[in-house]
Amino acid sequence: MMYAVGVDLGGTKTAAGVVSADGEVLFSDTVPTLSRDGGEAILDATAKLAAGLIKKAADDGITVERVGVGSAGVIDAGRGVVVSATDAIRGWAGTALTAGLATRLGLPASSVRAVNDVHAHALGEAWAGAAAGTASSLLVAFGTGVGGSFVLGGRPLLGQRHAGGHVGHFASPYAFHEGTAIPCVCGGAGHVEAVASGPAIREAYLRLGGTEPVTDARAVFALAGRSDAAAIRAVGIGAGAAGQAMGGLANILDPEVVVVTGGLSDAGAPWWRPMERALRAELLPALAGLPVLPATLGSAAALVGAARLVLLPPA
Amino acid sequence: MMYAVGVDLGGTKTAAGVVSADGEVLFSDTVPTLSRDGGEAILDATAKLAAGLIKKAADDGITVERVGVGSAGVIDAGRGVVVSATDAIRGWAGTALTAGLATRLGLPASSVRAVNDVHAHALGEAWAGAAAGTASSLLVAFGTGVGGSFVLGGRPLLGQRHAGGHVGHFASPYAFHEGTAIPCVCGGAGHVEAVASGPAIREAYLRLGGTEPVTDARAVFALAGRSDAAAIRAVGIGAGAAGQAMGGLANILDPEVVVVTGGLSDAGAPWWRPMERALRAELLPALAGLPVLPATLGSAAALVGAARLVLLPPA
Repeated sequence: MMYAVGVDLGGTKTAAGVVSADGEVLFSDTVPTLSRDGGEAILDATAKLAAGLIKKAADDGITVERVGVGSAGVIDAGRGVVVSATDAIRGWAGTALTAGLATRLGLPASSVRAVNDVHAHALGEAWAGAAAGTASSLLVAFGTGVGGSFVLGGRPLLGQRHAGGHVGHFASPYAFHEGTAIPCVCGGAGHVEAVASGPAIREAYLRLGGTEPVTDARAVFALAGRSDAAAIRAVGIGAGAAGQAMGGLANILDPEVVVVTGGLSDAGAPWWRPMERALRAELLPALAGLPVLPATLGSAAALVGAARLVLLPPA
Repeated sequence: MMYAVGVDLGGTKTAAGVVSADGEVLFSDTVPTLSRDGGEAILDATAKLAAGLIKKAADDGITVERVGVGSAGVIDAGRGVVVSATDAIRGWAGTALTAGLATRLGLPASSVRAVNDVHAHALGEAWAGAAAGTASSLLVAFGTGVGGSFVLGGRPLLGQRHAGGHVGHFASPYAFHEGTAIPCVCGGAGHVEAVASGPAIREAYLRLGGTEPVTDARAVFALAGRSDAAAIRAVGIGAGAAGQAMGGLANILDPEVVVVTGGLSDAGAPWWRPMERALRAELLPALAGLPVLPATLGSAAALVGAARLVLLPPA
């Protein structure tokens, strides 16, 4: 059996695990991401994390000589370089991610690969999670933002400019208030993310006249559970926009399954039911039986998908 | 040099041509599609058309032993069978398209392949037209309907249920009138096709209080050219919806180029300018330089793409 270290490098923490070629996580570890210290410091800490896992595996008689990384930011998977990143990880843009890790770990450059973390997440679910065994899957995550990835034959669609999967940035009829498009974090307006993310649900509650102090979407869900009318409407808008967006994308991509993940998905039926109703209302007759599935790998999805990058060729 | 017959089988006519492995059409011919006579009659006529071209090539010393077909309807490209078709071609659904042609032409089954005509169109432009030399392209056609195809590495994305490319069937903020979603031919409502197709532009003109008798979108364009206010608004809505839809899709698919085709695209600047403005307003910063190109192969695109199916392996 072949094994690899899979790394999920996010803005606040970095998780890594030893993953087998059949998608099982043998053991894992997590460290804070040194998000104020620059790319080289992050590479040092990530290499140390991976080296610890490789050592632990060796103690168990398991040889690990490959590392896959799912990282926050826009990643050039071909060159293994961080093209751009938000200020959440200072100095990450421009970092030679795979070369830097390979050097630190004494591995050949070809044994270390990286993609954006949402693509790693989708690849993990496509390989060993909710979409295991499928030829194609569309994964969409609804949380602080909205992101996604279309995986076809074991390859996430990365795009010509490493921008593939920005499923939060297309027009949504829900993303209007009194005839005006709601601004989106991308600089545009009227986009899915502007109305279907967690923060957007909180903002919708306030816009709709909600008067309770709410700090996040979770608080709006709690109010909706207590029959607060503005909260119920805000959740309905967010979930409806999410479902409508995924249904329309399914008509275009025709994936074997849709996988839904992220903090809003974890809120369960109060979000899931209106989301799925809106999704199915969009589908062409040919897609009527489309499975819409919750993700199953939880927080391990991205590190499992990252390991997949270096464990197997695309299906 | 290798050659193939490419066939473009539509609801009213069937065009075919002998195409070289470098994408040139040597000669072509067109016959009416026997759209009232059933699948076997259509296969007979199509085989006769292809045989005539093969004979003409042989007279010039050129051997042609492969046939590719782009056909109206939903095509199972793997099995070469027509999965479904509208009443525009009666009895087409269920036809064993590739096997029926191979038998009639005395060719091995593996020498005849078929896809849906929009995919063939996109493949033609990706191979020898506006998107030649690109790694990926999104083609969208705006005419009687709205259809498209994403071509990646020489393969159109056909989808799990042969439904890939239905880019007309996702939600558009433009597809509402006085707060109500405009019905779509697919049975849904509020979709891009319900507002961005040619017939939709005519309907928008009438809905917006236009009083001139208009039979098609062309008449609305003519009125807009004479400063008719309702006509100008109707064209603006259709073109805006088209551009917005393609911009959002570009953010998700990140194609190297977008190719626009169909009757509305042929209307030129009055449609193209508002379309491109709306498209670019949607784009993420990473896609700012995205080329948006008119198709260049004209009516030959689908037959060229159909020939491509049997001439070369995907890039």
